[in-house]
Amino acid sequence: MRILFATGNQGKVKEVKEKLSEFGIEVISLKELPHPLPPPPAETGSTFCENAHIKATYYAQKLNLPVMAEDSGLEVEALGGRPGVFSSRFASENATDEENNRKLIEELSALGLTESPARYVSFIFFAFPFQGGLWSEGEVRGKVVTTPRGEGGFGYDPLFIPEGFNKTMAELPLQVKNSISHRAKALERLVKAIKEIKCL
Amino acid sequence: MRILFATGNQGKVKEVKEKLSEFGIEVISLKELPHPLPPPPAETGSTFCENAHIKATYYAQKLNLPVMAEDSGLEVEALGGRPGVFSSRFASENATDEENNRKLIEELSALGLTESPARYVSFIFFAFPFQGGLWSEGEVRGKVVTTPRGEGGFGYDPLFIPEGFNKTMAELPLQVKNSISHRAKALERLVKAIKEIKCL
Repeated sequence: MRILFATGNQGKVKEVKEKLSEFGIEVISLKELPHPLPPPPAETGSTFCENAHIKATYYAQKLNLPVMAEDSGLEVEALGGRPGVFSSRFASENATDEENNRKLIEELSALGLTESPARYVSFIFFAFPFQGGLWSEGEVRGKVVTTPRGEGGFGYDPLFIPEGFNKTMAELPLQVKNSISHRAKALERLVKAIKEIKCL
Repeated sequence: MRILFATGNQGKVKEVKEKLSEFGIEVISLKELPHPLPPPPAETGSTFCENAHIKATYYAQKLNLPVMAEDSGLEVEALGGRPGVFSSRFASENATDEENNRKLIEELSALGLTESPARYVSFIFFAFPFQGGLWSEGEVRGKVVTTPRGEGGFGYDPLFIPEGFNKTMAELPLQVKNSISHRAKALERLVKAIKEIKCL
């Protein structure tokens, strides 16, 4: 089985390819297609659910093929759940991971905090061109700190320490991240849903 | 195949039972279960996607069974897309259909309008207890008018005239509504998605 995955984030492509290979599923990122691609849709949703849905249905309909899309982000308790759906554009519209991390550190520091409970959330839609398909979600709880550590992963991984660990997500080998992350859980559930539906 | 359907709306139960019987699927509303039911969840989402997801995952996890839930509503162009997710509580938290219809007529009349383009939208999540499952959506375009007509259906049906018709949704026999409505399209796509996934 092959799944087309719509994302411009190479960190996500790497993780998703690795994770789904465990289930014998080959992941092709849209950029690997020979087709010219349509411009990416505006992610105008106010929730992960909506944004993942917007992306997946947009590409599925434009390409007339089943397409998987994911929206994910970090919810920080001390910031009332922000940056949330704005995780990848927290510091500015085209912010780098480093700029977003710096902004998060500044906001926590401004509150006099060196850490806060937080969770990473992932929503996946696997859309058919006819506006239906599969969905799944995953989360990992933990805390964010104000001292970045580690070189792995992407996004806020250098600041995020998952529950039960004393290392940041960026310090964990991909194999470990891919056994505990929000995205890994969502992918496991997607595969589980496919299996359940085949038995319906 | 049997599907548990979470809704307190008897109009929806009737339509969904009728529509899915076309595909040999038996629909059981939660109230028909012998179990005592948990209190309904707060529909705190800002989108149909989010609300359908909240309802379906809540019941699937509480009951530890696959559960289907639907969120739907009317988006009126002249009102900037309202009532949208507030369709069933437009006039007040526990408003009747009649009160909501009256509120819509008043708002359009206050703008000096006797009609406006509008669309009905339906989002369905069919959730497994592990936070994954199927989803589908449907819409029907048309217009709303300020003179209610017809006794069938529910919600804003007496004010909604689907494209290609000169009768309101409430004047159409259930069999016709169930061949063109937003909910009917979402249900058809849900069944189509199940079939596609079985072939994956």
